[in-house]
Amino acid sequence: MRIRELSNRSGVSTPTIKYYVREGLLPAGQRLGPVRTEYSEEHIARLRLIRALRENGKLSVEAIKQVLERLDAAPDGHHSIAAAMEALDEQQEERRPRTVAEREELKEARRAIGDFLIGLGWKTRGHETSAERSLVEAFATLRRVMSKDLPVDVLEPYARALEQLAKVEIPAGRVVRAAPADAVRRAFLGMILFEPVLLSLRRLALEAEARKAYRQEMSSSMAERD
Amino acid sequence: MRIRELSNRSGVSTPTIKYYVREGLLPAGQRLGPVRTEYSEEHIARLRLIRALRENGKLSVEAIKQVLERLDAAPDGHHSIAAAMEALDEQQEERRPRTVAEREELKEARRAIGDFLIGLGWKTRGHETSAERSLVEAFATLRRVMSKDLPVDVLEPYARALEQLAKVEIPAGRVVRAAPADAVRRAFLGMILFEPVLLSLRRLALEAEARKAYRQEMSSSMAERD
Repeated sequence: MRIRELSNRSGVSTPTIKYYVREGLLPAGQRLGPVRTEYSEEHIARLRLIRALRENGKLSVEAIKQVLERLDAAPDGHHSIAAAMEALDEQQEERRPRTVAEREELKEARRAIGDFLIGLGWKTRGHETSAERSLVEAFATLRRVMSKDLPVDVLEPYARALEQLAKVEIPAGRVVRAAPADAVRRAFLGMILFEPVLLSLRRLALEAEARKAYRQEMSSSMAERD
Repeated sequence: MRIRELSNRSGVSTPTIKYYVREGLLPAGQRLGPVRTEYSEEHIARLRLIRALRENGKLSVEAIKQVLERLDAAPDGHHSIAAAMEALDEQQEERRPRTVAEREELKEARRAIGDFLIGLGWKTRGHETSAERSLVEAFATLRRVMSKDLPVDVLEPYARALEQLAKVEIPAGRVVRAAPADAVRRAFLGMILFEPVLLSLRRLALEAEARKAYRQEMSSSMAERD
């Protein structure tokens, strides 16, 4: 198909398609003549994936480029998930502590989170991954706003729920078996693409639970008055 | 304290503090003279909260203003959570479908998600909340990238996990009892501030599960070779 059809079907404008080709996110089309370039269904699929990573995953063009390059070169299961995660790490800038007190709070939070992750058996050796760093920063912020002494145990029910979920999301043995590169791709992309699903469902679950708690409270206070 | 100390202790620059006061996010300090304004510990707490909503919650200044105004005016439990959520709804722009096919896909996804939420007992009457809309959009994107026929049931384990979690996050009866405004405030802020915690923990859980699956696979394929 011509670039115009590619644009119509993918919902990505012609200049943006050309930009993605220049940046190496999208393979160039096949040149059939001086003003004629042919694109395939694979270009459509790739453009949809790029859009999904931008819209659902809120990734930058540079981050998408890095992530896709490493997934395309996927050697095997676990290692290429780690490689793609590393690409995300490199993109994410560390938030600098803004005051002396914050530097201390961050250090404290880092120690508490480290122990917590070791307890779960989730701690990786070597450098701090971006997920670990985000968790440390988010937890330090929670403490700053809610309570300086907020125990790390408040994270326990979250960790347990997500551990159960991970067992459904990555069924043992399915990551490496069969078509390894494709399975890894799916696992990694699922991780990114399901994030807004998770957040929306949590908000809906909390709204539903708050409504229920409110109704129970109302009926029990009516009963007390009777 | 003077504005300089307020800035040092909160990690927010003086011009930004003045901007927040002009925008009505932060109450003005007490004027003690033509060049002297006094700020209190409450100003520190408020600035920390604003920063947390910006950094953890990625909310815009306008969204924070709307959310805090409605939480400050909180009349009672359930209704003010709904009011604060509505403030978020107003901030979030609807993503427009870019092609004719996408409009259809979005309609399909909206119907599927609607049925799914009714099944869970989570569907609210009246307008579509921002959480519902985000879920519809994220699910339509998933279908576009993964499979046109992706069944809505893939969301089931996520919904169940988050329903369990919500019971811990909003213990029945605690929302309205005691200091209602404060309890609601905490429930709502917890919802926003725990979002990056949830995403980081999910990534860590998935990495840990992928490593485990990889090791199992390796040892079972070694056993097969023996």
